[in-house]
Amino acid sequence: MLPDTALLNHDRLHNLMADAELDVIVATSPENVTYMSGFWALPQWIRRGPQAYVLWPGPGHVEPEIITSSSTLDLLADQKIWVSNIRRFGSFHLDRDPDAALDPTTQRLVDQMGTPDNADGLAALVTGISEAGLASARIGIDEIGLLPGQMEKLREHLPEAKFTPAATLLRKVRAIKTPEEIARLARVADITECSIRAALKIAREGVSEIELARAFHARTVADDAVPVLGCIGFGERSALPNVQPSERKLARGDVIRFDVGGRYGHYRADIARIATFGEPRGDVRRYHRALLKGVERACELIRPGVRVSSIFEAAVETVRREGIAHYRRSHVGHGIGIDGYDAPALTATSDEVLEAGMVLCVETPYYELGRWGLQVEDMLVVRSDGAERLMATSGDLIEVEP
Amino acid sequence: MLPDTALLNHDRLHNLMADAELDVIVATSPENVTYMSGFWALPQWIRRGPQAYVLWPGPGHVEPEIITSSSTLDLLADQKIWVSNIRRFGSFHLDRDPDAALDPTTQRLVDQMGTPDNADGLAALVTGISEAGLASARIGIDEIGLLPGQMEKLREHLPEAKFTPAATLLRKVRAIKTPEEIARLARVADITECSIRAALKIAREGVSEIELARAFHARTVADDAVPVLGCIGFGERSALPNVQPSERKLARGDVIRFDVGGRYGHYRADIARIATFGEPRGDVRRYHRALLKGVERACELIRPGVRVSSIFEAAVETVRREGIAHYRRSHVGHGIGIDGYDAPALTATSDEVLEAGMVLCVETPYYELGRWGLQVEDMLVVRSDGAERLMATSGDLIEVEP
Repeated sequence: MLPDTALLNHDRLHNLMADAELDVIVATSPENVTYMSGFWALPQWIRRGPQAYVLWPGPGHVEPEIITSSSTLDLLADQKIWVSNIRRFGSFHLDRDPDAALDPTTQRLVDQMGTPDNADGLAALVTGISEAGLASARIGIDEIGLLPGQMEKLREHLPEAKFTPAATLLRKVRAIKTPEEIARLARVADITECSIRAALKIAREGVSEIELARAFHARTVADDAVPVLGCIGFGERSALPNVQPSERKLARGDVIRFDVGGRYGHYRADIARIATFGEPRGDVRRYHRALLKGVERACELIRPGVRVSSIFEAAVETVRREGIAHYRRSHVGHGIGIDGYDAPALTATSDEVLEAGMVLCVETPYYELGRWGLQVEDMLVVRSDGAERLMATSGDLIEVEP
Repeated sequence: MLPDTALLNHDRLHNLMADAELDVIVATSPENVTYMSGFWALPQWIRRGPQAYVLWPGPGHVEPEIITSSSTLDLLADQKIWVSNIRRFGSFHLDRDPDAALDPTTQRLVDQMGTPDNADGLAALVTGISEAGLASARIGIDEIGLLPGQMEKLREHLPEAKFTPAATLLRKVRAIKTPEEIARLARVADITECSIRAALKIAREGVSEIELARAFHARTVADDAVPVLGCIGFGERSALPNVQPSERKLARGDVIRFDVGGRYGHYRADIARIATFGEPRGDVRRYHRALLKGVERACELIRPGVRVSSIFEAAVETVRREGIAHYRRSHVGHGIGIDGYDAPALTATSDEVLEAGMVLCVETPYYELGRWGLQVEDMLVVRSDGAERLMATSGDLIEVEP
């Protein structure tokens, strides 16, 4: 049994493994390693190359295990992890005070350093699979985190195994969030909304996009989140979809577009809000209202069993009817979780169907080059009776007094 | 001719390409794409999966080009980039105000959106290679950023080409920094030192590791850098190599270990400093002095032509002689740049030789479980006449008054 605070949707994993007739899944990407075990391996998250894995056999096999480098065992010993078997690789030297009583974290680290050392990550993975009696099993492997050539080596060392790519399956598992995941997503949504408010608090004539971004990120790190997405643009720059803060100064009448969100407890936010500095000019109010209506209409329709393509159509049709007749989009949102783009993608051509426990970003961005960009993006949970917004604020146009 | 502010060491790239008899190099990882072109493709940096490439033919061929998704062209139009040919892929809808005069960024974006659209990243790369007349060339491909299966598809679509992995070659190019890279590394080193100072400013009895980390990151984002590495540990937790800030409260006599550094202008810092809260206890002063002497000895010996293995031996021998007779390490530092672990690695077994323009982290960490961890880590540039430290502060033990 997993603890209540686990990120992994254990039942869904086992169901989808059974459907795919897999005996074992191997997580290799940072997102999937953390998701399946709780283990956050710093080197794997901040660079490409360092390897950590989770080996997760289906029911009836041995217990799951984490495979990681000896130099990361302290993180493992210090984190809330629900996989107790550990296999390490690589040498790493730690001294020890022979007279000291050890705290629990340090004791776990000492115990883990006492286990046998494997040569490297791939050797440890091959040994792990073999010792679990899975050398001729059907193995689903999260292909995203592997380095080029590693798949070939796995096939060479485990010639009887049947390997299948499993990144898509794990993405499907991750689509339905556990209560702990929803709690973290709610928290990071809240941090992001507070950060938007903190940024707008310093809005005045002549302040730069960079200065607003600084105020935004200051709030984010004060709440123990990590800055990730910080698109903040004024006036004509708000029409740049990925606008990175510049020295552009705020002027009366400017649109201020935020498409922003940090990471908290490894979980992502992605929220958009629009403010104007002074009274909105031209069509801003009417266009923004149409975009907001699009998001609101999508939210009304959201419930388990609904096809995401119908959400897409309803959102786009609503925006067109409510004031932007020429509105065009490739998607009106996406899932969000430990990855910023979880399943499903809210597109016209998707055959995915909403399920309870999905967490979605619903968005209707509109970029008019030379003029401005407007966007409403909310985060919500799909519940049995409809959408539960994770937002404290409405998507209304915010008017900042100059 | 590249601008003075380019990150790419153009001459070294061409020399190493000639040595390896390569006609063209393809960058695929976020670090190498930004390094070779100046182009920072947000989706590629924050997630695994999104693709962007730089195709860089050797002298005598066509001009280099950037290959990126249509949805990222605004970033390209808004950044200082020294590769002018662009090839885009994927559809992305942008509206345009027909009456507006366009600013230069928006005009570039409009121009680029007017170029032909390729189906996907791999198709664009195949077309780019073919149109450059390189379909039967010797192609060095940065294998790190490719997704599983992409290498096989490249071979299938370009059956006459001879592909060679090139991540190691690009790492070798990146080892010798340009003036712009050194300026950014100096800046991020300075931001990191200021952030350590800001964190120590709030050190008082009962403050937590998390609170110190908050003060650290607040300073980092105030200087427009992004938090990356934030290992901050008190007392027995300072012995955990990758210590992540916890609720552990500061007490009199505690060691405070920082192994920290953000990212500024895409460039990384990695610096370690030790403070004690109140007077150092036990062997802290003696051990710390030995570790500092090790770093200082390494710095004295650093100059072009010296083998890194001799730096390793000198540092370890000095630490042993100066007070930690049992000192053992696998490395005493590494290069740093757009990646946190650039070449060279300062190990006993490396055959690498120092060259002018390398930027190094030199470090002598010592982790004694149950007691404390001590570490000195400085950043420096290898100059023709020796090491030029990028540090404003010495590595001396810092004593914080309770």
